[in-house]
Amino acid sequence: MMRTRPLKVALLGCGVVGSEVARIMTTHTDDLAQRVGAPVELAGIAVRRPDRVRAGVPADLITTDATALVKRGDIDVVVEVIGGIEPARGLITTAFEHGASVVSANKALLAQDGAALHAAAERHGADLYYEAAVAGAIPLVRPLRESLAGDKVNRVLGIVNGTTNFILDKMDSSGAGYSEALDEATALGYAEADPTADVEGFDAAAKAAILAGIAFHTRVRLDDVYREGMTEVTAADFASAKQMGCTIKLLAICERAGDGRSVTARVHPAMIPLSHPLASVREAYNAVFVEAEAAGQLMFYGPGAGGSPTASAVLGDLVAVCRNKLAEATGPGESAYTRLPVSPMDTVVTRYHISLDVADKPGVLAQVATVFAEHAVSIDTVRQQGKAGEASLVVVTHRAADAALSATVDALRKLDTVRGVASIMRVEGE
Amino acid sequence: MMRTRPLKVALLGCGVVGSEVARIMTTHTDDLAQRVGAPVELAGIAVRRPDRVRAGVPADLITTDATALVKRGDIDVVVEVIGGIEPARGLITTAFEHGASVVSANKALLAQDGAALHAAAERHGADLYYEAAVAGAIPLVRPLRESLAGDKVNRVLGIVNGTTNFILDKMDSSGAGYSEALDEATALGYAEADPTADVEGFDAAAKAAILAGIAFHTRVRLDDVYREGMTEVTAADFASAKQMGCTIKLLAICERAGDGRSVTARVHPAMIPLSHPLASVREAYNAVFVEAEAAGQLMFYGPGAGGSPTASAVLGDLVAVCRNKLAEATGPGESAYTRLPVSPMDTVVTRYHISLDVADKPGVLAQVATVFAEHAVSIDTVRQQGKAGEASLVVVTHRAADAALSATVDALRKLDTVRGVASIMRVEGE
Repeated sequence: MMRTRPLKVALLGCGVVGSEVARIMTTHTDDLAQRVGAPVELAGIAVRRPDRVRAGVPADLITTDATALVKRGDIDVVVEVIGGIEPARGLITTAFEHGASVVSANKALLAQDGAALHAAAERHGADLYYEAAVAGAIPLVRPLRESLAGDKVNRVLGIVNGTTNFILDKMDSSGAGYSEALDEATALGYAEADPTADVEGFDAAAKAAILAGIAFHTRVRLDDVYREGMTEVTAADFASAKQMGCTIKLLAICERAGDGRSVTARVHPAMIPLSHPLASVREAYNAVFVEAEAAGQLMFYGPGAGGSPTASAVLGDLVAVCRNKLAEATGPGESAYTRLPVSPMDTVVTRYHISLDVADKPGVLAQVATVFAEHAVSIDTVRQQGKAGEASLVVVTHRAADAALSATVDALRKLDTVRGVASIMRVEGE
Repeated sequence: MMRTRPLKVALLGCGVVGSEVARIMTTHTDDLAQRVGAPVELAGIAVRRPDRVRAGVPADLITTDATALVKRGDIDVVVEVIGGIEPARGLITTAFEHGASVVSANKALLAQDGAALHAAAERHGADLYYEAAVAGAIPLVRPLRESLAGDKVNRVLGIVNGTTNFILDKMDSSGAGYSEALDEATALGYAEADPTADVEGFDAAAKAAILAGIAFHTRVRLDDVYREGMTEVTAADFASAKQMGCTIKLLAICERAGDGRSVTARVHPAMIPLSHPLASVREAYNAVFVEAEAAGQLMFYGPGAGGSPTASAVLGDLVAVCRNKLAEATGPGESAYTRLPVSPMDTVVTRYHISLDVADKPGVLAQVATVFAEHAVSIDTVRQQGKAGEASLVVVTHRAADAALSATVDALRKLDTVRGVASIMRVEGE
């Protein structure tokens, strides 16, 4: 029953993920052939620095000319694990033009240029699959675009960056401050030398853009995602969170807006109750909650990064794309028919936890409460703590538009009796 | 771009799940059309008792002649949500013979006759999809057979029956006995009037057979699955579990056997550590842990039953099958190429928690320990408790073959100093 002519695969990039893809392709050839229905051959591996290729990667397949590899004419599938915008974008486009389908793990590129790449794939009758771009090995793209294709997704709420979850988990469990926890993450290889993309939320924002687009069948770009990093989360914030029965996570949140005519996508640190399943996601693990109209609440959990997990996702896509090639069909492409616009952060309805340093004298609470009332933000709880002339007020609000909450905080800063705003954090997952 | 001739769907069964499928198909027609790429039309609904059809289901589509509906000649997809072996099996076979693909939620039928049905589908170039047969809305079949298609799954460990999880959760949280908790589950609609299929583990065993077959690319039938129900779990067992930092769950466990040349599949109650993610799965929720070579540990969580969640899974499959129809292709069929045999329970390596009522006199522990040693079962911990001439011994073993553990228990029963075996339970998830 099996076709004997192999499907030929070009691998672009051979770092942590690529070398693992190459290893599995060359050691599990029989299983891959059985699952695809034809042999799958690793036909070439393009790298920038051939001297750095890891042991075990077939040396005779290595080339530094990625363009020539993609243009060879006999390549059925291009696996792109280079990352970044260029040359990845040009190579993927060239792959489509030469009849190849593409499996990519490139979240930054998909979040920025997903629509154009999907259009190019469709124009050339090719597939563009990218399960590995979001949350490593965790099946998320396929469940959202296939398993839930008959349902209406209302909300996606997830921990999609392992580095920041590791840091926040350390801060929570050990009481460490941000820089101490970052140092530990760096020492253990969980954070890169320049951790900006992770700790400032850029990585999570790219994933949020991809997830929101698939979940709501509309186009969401990286620029549409509101983003706050987690570098300003303090040990004191964790102490406050504990007093509320919460912990702090960096969350990616994609929601339909109240009236159903728009969507929002955002990344920021937030308090979530300890009873929420996301609260117990430890170390560098990822987990994503999906709320759908018929399905209810689903959660997907697993390793969100790393060579092997990401390679697992790449290879799952590779099998699917190869099967499609054999069937002369393509899998689901971009689905953006709802054309729902992305609303700005101002319109997001959420809750705030605000910690104020205030003068320790009568009437302060009344003043503060008046400011909230003037902005029509309803207070859920207030906790006053005072010692030696200093006092703090912790206010947790009911749900209100982010714009109203921001305006409230601005007005609070102007009160004489408010010496400072120690921390502001959104409260989610309730 | 969209085809105007609709794809026609016949719905077999219109109970809790079927009526929800009909409702979504008739209210979300535009979304379904966009996601499929052609209109999807509900062409007929076969029911046994038309007088019992729920409000909102289009009356003009109702028929009592399921066979005639399936044979109509213009049906593209048959959705089977009748359950049970016949007439479902005959109708599905007839559907394939008449050119239709099939979406089924029928775990019993798939666990018993999956291979024959897959063969029939392949013979007629049709699809057989059944995400809804396992764990309701939770995407599991698709992730296992597509997302992890490039990986090697070593273990599937899950809570796949909501009724029994509800009962065990109640026993755990309230200290209630089995019958009291069952009564509550029945009153709240979580247990059927005859709960046998759930509490004796038949339902979970069918799901274990399906999951094991997909995970290990081999054939596993219901008869291959070792099965113990949970009707004999007592409040005392939960007390013992708590002392060990554990709770008790009814687990479906599918594993590669040690030498990799066979697989095992089993369903039984087991103690699992409170720190294991499955321990915190509450009420009627389901969750499945998957361990794969490259991906690592993944978990899938959500509502495992109910009309809406099951309908969500059915509709996801319906969209995929309709897309395949349009592309004149089929999705992944049965993958059983590894032909790994299923080993019997005797060979499973696990741990035991054994609670013995013993005579309160010196030397008992030595006698008991000798019996374990004679069967080469290593003891992890022993706890002795004595009062007023009665005493109990709780033994937790290291990992050993189930046969050795069973023989040990048989030998213990024959000791004069052992008055009774109060409980035996396997310990998993460590």
